[in-house]
Amino acid sequence: MDYLYLLIIVLIAGIISIILALYFARMVLKEDPGNEKMVEVSGYIAEGAKTFVKVQYKVLAIFVLVLSAALLFLPSMVDQNLRLIPGALNWEQMVAYIVGSAASMGAGYLGMEVGVKANTRAAQACTKGLKKGFDVSFFGGAVMGLAVVGAALIGISVIYWVLPDPNVILGFSFGASSVALFAKCGGGIYTKTADVGADLVGKAEYDLPEDDPRNPASIADNVGDNVGDIAGMGSDLFDSYVASILAAMLLAAILSSFFAGTGENRQAFIILPILLSGMGLFASLVSIFYIKKKKTEDPGKSLNNGTYMATGIFIVFAGLISLIVSLIVKGDELLVWKVYACTIAGLASGILIGFIGNYYTNDEKKPTRKVAEAAQEGHAVVILSGFSYGLISVAPPAIGIAVAMAVAYWLAGVYGVAMAAVGMLSIVGTIVTNDAYGPICDNARGIAEQGDLGEEVIRTADKLDSAGNTAKAITKGFAIGAANLTVLALLFSFSQEVQAEAPALAYVMDLQNVSVLIGAFIGVIVPAIFAALLTLSVQRNAGKMVREIRRQFEENPKILTGDEAADFNKCIAIATKGALKELIFPSILSILTPLVIGMLFGAAALGAFLAGSILSGFVFAIFMSNAGGSWDNAKKYIEDGNLGGKGTETHKAAITGDTVGDPFKDTAGPSINTLLVVMSLTATIFLGFILLFGGGMGLLGEFLL
Amino acid sequence: MDYLYLLIIVLIAGIISIILALYFARMVLKEDPGNEKMVEVSGYIAEGAKTFVKVQYKVLAIFVLVLSAALLFLPSMVDQNLRLIPGALNWEQMVAYIVGSAASMGAGYLGMEVGVKANTRAAQACTKGLKKGFDVSFFGGAVMGLAVVGAALIGISVIYWVLPDPNVILGFSFGASSVALFAKCGGGIYTKTADVGADLVGKAEYDLPEDDPRNPASIADNVGDNVGDIAGMGSDLFDSYVASILAAMLLAAILSSFFAGTGENRQAFIILPILLSGMGLFASLVSIFYIKKKKTEDPGKSLNNGTYMATGIFIVFAGLISLIVSLIVKGDELLVWKVYACTIAGLASGILIGFIGNYYTNDEKKPTRKVAEAAQEGHAVVILSGFSYGLISVAPPAIGIAVAMAVAYWLAGVYGVAMAAVGMLSIVGTIVTNDAYGPICDNARGIAEQGDLGEEVIRTADKLDSAGNTAKAITKGFAIGAANLTVLALLFSFSQEVQAEAPALAYVMDLQNVSVLIGAFIGVIVPAIFAALLTLSVQRNAGKMVREIRRQFEENPKILTGDEAADFNKCIAIATKGALKELIFPSILSILTPLVIGMLFGAAALGAFLAGSILSGFVFAIFMSNAGGSWDNAKKYIEDGNLGGKGTETHKAAITGDTVGDPFKDTAGPSINTLLVVMSLTATIFLGFILLFGGGMGLLGEFLL
Repeated sequence: MDYLYLLIIVLIAGIISIILALYFARMVLKEDPGNEKMVEVSGYIAEGAKTFVKVQYKVLAIFVLVLSAALLFLPSMVDQNLRLIPGALNWEQMVAYIVGSAASMGAGYLGMEVGVKANTRAAQACTKGLKKGFDVSFFGGAVMGLAVVGAALIGISVIYWVLPDPNVILGFSFGASSVALFAKCGGGIYTKTADVGADLVGKAEYDLPEDDPRNPASIADNVGDNVGDIAGMGSDLFDSYVASILAAMLLAAILSSFFAGTGENRQAFIILPILLSGMGLFASLVSIFYIKKKKTEDPGKSLNNGTYMATGIFIVFAGLISLIVSLIVKGDELLVWKVYACTIAGLASGILIGFIGNYYTNDEKKPTRKVAEAAQEGHAVVILSGFSYGLISVAPPAIGIAVAMAVAYWLAGVYGVAMAAVGMLSIVGTIVTNDAYGPICDNARGIAEQGDLGEEVIRTADKLDSAGNTAKAITKGFAIGAANLTVLALLFSFSQEVQAEAPALAYVMDLQNVSVLIGAFIGVIVPAIFAALLTLSVQRNAGKMVREIRRQFEENPKILTGDEAADFNKCIAIATKGALKELIFPSILSILTPLVIGMLFGAAALGAFLAGSILSGFVFAIFMSNAGGSWDNAKKYIEDGNLGGKGTETHKAAITGDTVGDPFKDTAGPSINTLLVVMSLTATIFLGFILLFGGGMGLLGEFLL
Repeated sequence: MDYLYLLIIVLIAGIISIILALYFARMVLKEDPGNEKMVEVSGYIAEGAKTFVKVQYKVLAIFVLVLSAALLFLPSMVDQNLRLIPGALNWEQMVAYIVGSAASMGAGYLGMEVGVKANTRAAQACTKGLKKGFDVSFFGGAVMGLAVVGAALIGISVIYWVLPDPNVILGFSFGASSVALFAKCGGGIYTKTADVGADLVGKAEYDLPEDDPRNPASIADNVGDNVGDIAGMGSDLFDSYVASILAAMLLAAILSSFFAGTGENRQAFIILPILLSGMGLFASLVSIFYIKKKKTEDPGKSLNNGTYMATGIFIVFAGLISLIVSLIVKGDELLVWKVYACTIAGLASGILIGFIGNYYTNDEKKPTRKVAEAAQEGHAVVILSGFSYGLISVAPPAIGIAVAMAVAYWLAGVYGVAMAAVGMLSIVGTIVTNDAYGPICDNARGIAEQGDLGEEVIRTADKLDSAGNTAKAITKGFAIGAANLTVLALLFSFSQEVQAEAPALAYVMDLQNVSVLIGAFIGVIVPAIFAALLTLSVQRNAGKMVREIRRQFEENPKILTGDEAADFNKCIAIATKGALKELIFPSILSILTPLVIGMLFGAAALGAFLAGSILSGFVFAIFMSNAGGSWDNAKKYIEDGNLGGKGTETHKAAITGDTVGDPFKDTAGPSINTLLVVMSLTATIFLGFILLFGGGMGLLGEFLL
């Protein structure tokens, strides 16, 4: 029996999703963009964002082209005896790779395009009240959310329908990852270059408020929100989403005996992750409509309620699809339900991790209060405090991930672990929507200020903005947790692939083996280096930005009095050029390191390298996100009038914390996710090539036995 | 043939070492302690240090007692079938444990006792010139260096002579580790509580210079140098030193077929690490006498020359002993020379790591210059810069360790890796001497100031102090590298012990196994949490100190004018109480975590836990030490008049960096070494107990297969 027809449900869901995305886009674009000044500012932002994305996509196109060539020639070059097969070409994966990158770029572009136009409309809508402002921002964000999920599900189901081989999906996933790597790193560097630069001079030296139009970097700062937080985050979650489905598909296709029934059941388990993700999309759709209907008093609560609702609906829908599948697979009914339990466990742990992230970053909770209090003792102490709590905050989510993994493994083996990741990411439509909502409000607030819409409107926009921050605290932890579980699943599928492709190779990631240990060692270090490189990039670029802003203020004093406009384009150019230049090295690092480890020390060392990078990447991602979030909120807590309030030494110290935290939480921390996925996929996709070296033992590996 | 008689050489070396330590102690104590004021200050410091050490040793005694009981009953409770053997008592290890802790405490006490008396004498000697001042400080430090090595070698050789079983040495080593854990964590918290507290109020708020006697925390600061940097660092290296020898002994005793000759050859390889360490002691002695003879123009160079000299002499002496051993072991001549090469490789990589540490922290090199320049852009940027370079600085030494490990493994297997660690630590006498020299000069400088010895003398003391910092840059990296290679060796010996004790257990640290993966995950996290807890302890205590200093200044304005003495004892009490209170939790954590992991997830997961903690511990230790060192030197670079010099905003930002770096480099970073050794030894020593749970699979492990 052919289960492929079940994919129709998913395809329909995907198409509905894209149609709705376009519908919401039209709906938002029909709104009043506000007064002339607002349109002008919004125009600057849109133009700046487009310029960046265009240049970025050009560089990305070259990158994709080079990797396409590598993909065409390298992966499938070995036979069962690990000998070269001359002339073997890998068309399928290459085409899927290009489609995957195009899909991710397209979704990102659409989402951002609407985002940069939604901001001024949201600002204008705020004049008509909170609910109206919320709606415009929310549906602006939903465009990105739905485009991501729609493009991913359509891509996967169509490709799998045409070529029912999960290895082709691997190409698609790798394409999504390449885009995410660029979008996340580049966007992350861009947004913090502008933000940190603007703050360091504007706020700290000239006492300008946030988003003040006199600040030459204010537009670049707004552009950054769009390219970093909307396009970057969207492509990051697109990446994890596809990778989680892929990992489960690969495992279902390769595992020898995890199901009890006929060979046909295998097919059911291969498409089960797609089906469940489709259910997640339906759940997200329902929750989006629920939020649309609902009167919004507390927008932060609305967003979170949407998340819980999507979770609840997913549990029901996923149960239904499990019921259907369980009726079809003879002999494996129980396994279907176990897998269902795995997805629930994954989703639950995702929400738990989100909550814990919120505990460590919310200014109503103890850790952030302590960080705020530490600011009373100066710049150094607030740094030490945030640093320490950030590190400590790693433990609870790590235990959450470990428990989810253990439970899922106990229920359904490595396939179960992959399905837990699928479960965690099932409601990604809602997560991306909530995430993209944030920068739209943030921009709207700035535009309201620049368009002189008055105190009342700014306060409304502020309320929306802070709701975005509340939601973000949860979605960010969620994204990291989901990516982590996904790369763990990819690690398992990598291991299975090695054993399938090179059955003669003793593939054991035994840490007693020195090659394996060295692989793990370098794996542990890479995320740290990667995070440091990105942080340094931001610091270096922000320095350039600082000098440019100072130059403008010094050379033209009329900018500060507001009589002449600042030269926004110079600042935009600095952020754009800097971000693109700086992302090259980390990108190459993330592709080359796994290849080099594999070639030198062999497949088992490469597996251990991935494992090491996953574990330490988790530590750094959570630490940097939570420390950054905590510093940010500690500063806001003080700005709300606590501990002396604005302008005090305590406040200045808190600003230092926030500035350190900016690249932590918005550049380095979240980019680590992408790094891990890219490295895992690189290892899997180029496995055939790697196995050529020393018969899978690596060039040096055979000396270390 | 009985090789034990060769140990006589080592025993003699050890006894000479102790005699010399006592001789140097007398020599230093005979020096003129200076004027009344100096004697008074020095008396305060000595008293403060003694009080702390006494209270610490009391707490430590209870800790040792509890662990002795655990050691007596728990370790050897299982038979080959992993069943409980009722009534089996483990007297030997327990006694060795108590002897080990007593030896470490004794060496630490002697070294510190002389250190606190050498300071005032060094200050007075500075009035007679640089060379005289250098000599007093250097021989004051040599007391600690020689006491450490002497006590360790006498302990090991006597115990092994009486009971020729490396497992008994395991008890001795565990004793040394227990002391190191307390001394390093407690001392580290103490010294930075006082230092950070004194700086935050004295320097930042009241513009007092360093070591100003009006600062109520100035004495506590000096005490801290002694208990943290002398006693703490000494016990840390004592710990690594013994553990490296132990790891090699255990491996030689347990490995089935690494030597080719008769069974008697095994004995030779068991004592070879002791013999080589003895040669290292001789090398250190010669280098100490060389420095004594030499005229000192540039004290920093003298110290480093001493290190290179000790290295060179060790290579010769170790070659001689290898020649002797190779003449005795029939059939294994080549292996002896391979092992010799391993020790050289280890030592070379240690020196390399030291140099790299110097590159990343020296203000004449690019990274620290960049950090100093970043200070021009404010508090936040200097933090970001130091943080990033600190992380990046992890890569080169990691590659150094990986290469040393790979080469040693290629030459002589896991035994070779252990011998590389032995080689790296062979010249520990010189390293500890150079290290203990630093705080003596640092104190001397303060006492010269407080005793009004005049500008000229203070400048001389300053020169000596900065030489200590130069030497420290190298010795610190050395200590971390050595500890890391040691714990890697301990990991291998743990694995061998498991396989010997539970041959039926499938002991494979395969990261595909979920139990093993969870073990590694928690292992990666523990050093981060540990570092955070210690940093937070310092921050918390320093906060108390800050409030106390402010209180004194506010309640009695005469303190600031210098008309009345500050209440030093209050500050000393805060540092003492705080340090002891705060070290309890991390200590318990380091003993309990490996036990819990082993009990829940089994021996293989425990091995992976150790591996994970070693790898991530290395990252955090190097990162924190180098970031801290770089901030420190960036600040000094600015204080030397660069980038605007003292009093500028740039300088203030650099002070922030330094203050953040203080607990990084002197508390958390170096304590991680000790944590790793303690955890590794805990796992090995309580292995019998751990194997009782789930037949070595752990209580949960069997569900995760």
